Amino acid sequence: MADARFFERAGPFDLAELASAAGAEVAGAPSAVLLFVDVMPLALAGPEHVSFIDNRRYMDAYRGSNAGAIVVASDLVPLAPPKAVLLVTPDPYRGYAKVAQLFYPAAPVAGRAPGQAIVAPSARIGEDVVLMQGAVIGEDCIIGDGCRIGEYTVLGKGVRLGAACRIGPNCTLICCTLGSGVVLHPGVRIGQDGFGFAPGAPKHEKVPQLGTVVIEDDVELGANTAVDRGAGPDTIIGTGTKIDNLCHIAHNVELGRGCLVAAQVGISGSAKLGDYVMIGGQSGIAGHLVIGDGVRIAAKSGVTKDIPAGMTVAGFPAIKSTEHWRNLAAIKRLRKK
Amino acid sequence: MADARFFERAGPFDLAELASAAGAEVAGAPSAVLLFVDVMPLALAGPEHVSFIDNRRYMDAYRGSNAGAIVVASDLVPLAPPKAVLLVTPDPYRGYAKVAQLFYPAAPVAGRAPGQAIVAPSARIGEDVVLMQGAVIGEDCIIGDGCRIGEYTVLGKGVRLGAACRIGPNCTLICCTLGSGVVLHPGVRIGQDGFGFAPGAPKHEKVPQLGTVVIEDDVELGANTAVDRGAGPDTIIGTGTKIDNLCHIAHNVELGRGCLVAAQVGISGSAKLGDYVMIGGQSGIAGHLVIGDGVRIAAKSGVTKDIPAGMTVAGFPAIKSTEHWRNLAAIKRLRKK
Amino acid sequence: MADARFFERAGPFDLAELASAAGAEVAGAPSAVLLFVDVMPLALAGPEHVSFIDNRRYMDAYRGSNAGAIVVASDLVPLAPPKAVLLVTPDPYRGYAKVAQLFYPAAPVAGRAPGQAIVAPSARIGEDVVLMQGAVIGEDCIIGDGCRIGEYTVLGKGVRLGAACRIGPNCTLICCTLGSGVVLHPGVRIGQDGFGFAPGAPKHEKVPQLGTVVIEDDVELGANTAVDRGAGPDTIIGTGTKIDNLCHIAHNVELGRGCLVAAQVGISGSAKLGDYVMIGGQSGIAGHLVIGDGVRIAAKSGVTKDIPAGMTVAGFPAIKSTEHWRNLAAIKRLRKK
Repeated sequence: MADARFFERAGPFDLAELASAAGAEVAGAPSAVLLFVDVMPLALAGPEHVSFIDNRRYMDAYRGSNAGAIVVASDLVPLAPPKAVLLVTPDPYRGYAKVAQLFYPAAPVAGRAPGQAIVAPSARIGEDVVLMQGAVIGEDCIIGDGCRIGEYTVLGKGVRLGAACRIGPNCTLICCTLGSGVVLHPGVRIGQDGFGFAPGAPKHEKVPQLGTVVIEDDVELGANTAVDRGAGPDTIIGTGTKIDNLCHIAHNVELGRGCLVAAQVGISGSAKLGDYVMIGGQSGIAGHLVIGDGVRIAAKSGVTKDIPAGMTVAGFPAIKSTEHWRNLAAIKRLRKK
Repeated sequence: MADARFFERAGPFDLAELASAAGAEVAGAPSAVLLFVDVMPLALAGPEHVSFIDNRRYMDAYRGSNAGAIVVASDLVPLAPPKAVLLVTPDPYRGYAKVAQLFYPAAPVAGRAPGQAIVAPSARIGEDVVLMQGAVIGEDCIIGDGCRIGEYTVLGKGVRLGAACRIGPNCTLICCTLGSGVVLHPGVRIGQDGFGFAPGAPKHEKVPQLGTVVIEDDVELGANTAVDRGAGPDTIIGTGTKIDNLCHIAHNVELGRGCLVAAQVGISGSAKLGDYVMIGGQSGIAGHLVIGDGVRIAAKSGVTKDIPAGMTVAGFPAIKSTEHWRNLAAIKRLRKK
Repeated sequence: MADARFFERAGPFDLAELASAAGAEVAGAPSAVLLFVDVMPLALAGPEHVSFIDNRRYMDAYRGSNAGAIVVASDLVPLAPPKAVLLVTPDPYRGYAKVAQLFYPAAPVAGRAPGQAIVAPSARIGEDVVLMQGAVIGEDCIIGDGCRIGEYTVLGKGVRLGAACRIGPNCTLICCTLGSGVVLHPGVRIGQDGFGFAPGAPKHEKVPQLGTVVIEDDVELGANTAVDRGAGPDTIIGTGTKIDNLCHIAHNVELGRGCLVAAQVGISGSAKLGDYVMIGGQSGIAGHLVIGDGVRIAAKSGVTKDIPAGMTVAGFPAIKSTEHWRNLAAIKRLRKK
């Protein structure tokens, strides 16, 4: 499926390897091939390919697919095409993700070979670290094993990275500590001053921003996203949280574990978010709020009050989503009067 | 008009050259000068300058202008100042654009002279290519004739550019193919992973993003805009589409030809837009939608449903703009009760 | 308080130095120490630390604090903890800012030592200028005394900076003139083409953007913010204006003095803003509007009309905030019917 100009494929893999990766049980027809060579969409796949279905919109493609193997949930087993081996799992999208990771173990990156980097003598660089062209590693930095630092990315004094971080090109990191497995896409800005001023005439007085940014394990930050350091306390992004492109995370914000934050979201200063919070694109959260675990915030919402755990909210000001839909319906009725 | 510190002016040009550039017919007074030296606003222009009018708000400046030549539509010819040559065209703003391009053929760029670039031996570089300081050209890249690659811009393995692309400084391009005449402003991010995860505990599982980005001829992307590569299919931006600063184009999105996308717009994954779609600033489009040719989306809209060709929509959720205005009027009446 | 990996602390300072910095009068208990060593939050401070209170939410922490000195307004003097020296000032947050600036005179930056820069022979570089690794200084640039230019930042031909500017890494500056004391955070883009096209088939015609960007003294621009140059007139940002991360300032925009613009705001072309305008996050302002002095625009607003000086507006379309709240209340009543 993937363009060989950009992607390096591993494999081939046999059925047992696929089932193990997908966490799936094997069902359906016996396998027509010994080895599978790639992942492929249902409509394009042949006997040597692995495909998946997790949305009934694609039922026709599923029934007619020539895929050799399909990752699928148990309810769709009876409707499978006759020649496909089935890899049955409760979460086929996750199963597919694991199979695709097997074929494509490493994401493409800007360069392939180390370049000439600028490393301070006091920096400690782990094993198997790849420093790309022009990467700057400041004094007293500590870079964990297996990290990769992109072209022209700059790490200020004292920055620490755990193992196996992938830092894209043209990023800047100051006043921060990253865990292991952190992925930063190109242009990410971490640790610059928060927007802290004592406002007023004759001039807005800068309040020194004396905290840091702490980014825990397995966090991923999208292209050109910015995370300011704390004003006194730290800005914290919890383990496994994923943030999309062009987001703004202000000073002192805390995100819990496993949050999913879509593109162009802004989170104002000192907001505290629990675990597994999901935020739709272009939403904003006002400062100093507390957002409970598992809260879901619809796209383009503006959150102005604390939200208790588990609630789904929408609109601006964001309210319980069911009430928001009733507001919209009421306005529509009104217009038609 | 333009500051000579930054802009290099061509010319002077005679009336025939101006008329040809503007696609205009000559009318009005005979020309007082043989050669015109610059473009200039109506109020500042003298006999040696070319000006234009395309908005009746500026009628006073038009009638009183000392400009030697004015690009104008035919309806304003009778109201022209007595000493101006008129360059008459149905689209005076376009006519002015062409004349201004004549005087200022090349936009200012960060540097003027090639610097020390880092070019992989397997890359193929066309004629008259300018590589600025620190540009990184990865393995197997193909760079068309007349391209210019800005300072510290990084092209990953296999990236291909057509002829005469102007790529600004500090950009990153991976997994992508660009046509000819593409303009990328500084800080553009192309081809990084889309935001694709199989969500859930214990961790959100990364779905390998195996597509590319295809950018067709004459596309322009604004500063710090990000275009993610496809998850399997490609992300595609059609010929002549112009996108402003700080926009987010998610994986698998397709934009048709000649779209105009204002700043800070976000387009979610797998949305398909037709030709000549216009999108106002800070709007968002939800995932998997189909937006027809010629649709106009007002600023700050949130599009949540497919939009048929030719419709103008506004609001969130975006509806036909006439209905949106009626909603607003109904709310206003309600408040006043 | 601040992590010594990242922050260099000055001091210690005696009470007279603190009072002078804070513009405060001394009251309360006699000082238990001769020298103060750091700023610290109320709850963590000991006798050798300076703290502050400007929000009654923290009254308990104030009454129980062991801080040696506290910056405070006069109304809270009677409630002070018995052992604290008080630094009494009408604006305690500003007083704290000045004291914290004393202890932390310079914000952390990406690198500490000059690197190898690329400087055009015709550029004029002031005294005590620090050029970091890979900084590019174009032809005819003029850099004032005491400026610092971050790693891989690119200054195009003719760019001028006043004294003591701090320009972060990975910025690009073309066609612009900066005053003194300007702070640009990483990834700022200044002076690229505005989004100017004569729209229509067969192609949108680029209108040459022939103005510049003028940034006056003491302006601060957040990470990845973009300021386009003027189309003919200049784009102007007035003295002391502070703009947060990921903002978009279009061509010909003028901001007055002392404006505060929160993150992800977009200001469309040719809008003119007065002095001390405050704009909440994610707001947008339409093109060609005039916004008076001291206007306050709530977060996520969409301003579509001129706003007279001193008004507070909210919503989209933005209206007087009191009317906006009444709209919201009316909708809520309607839903409950």
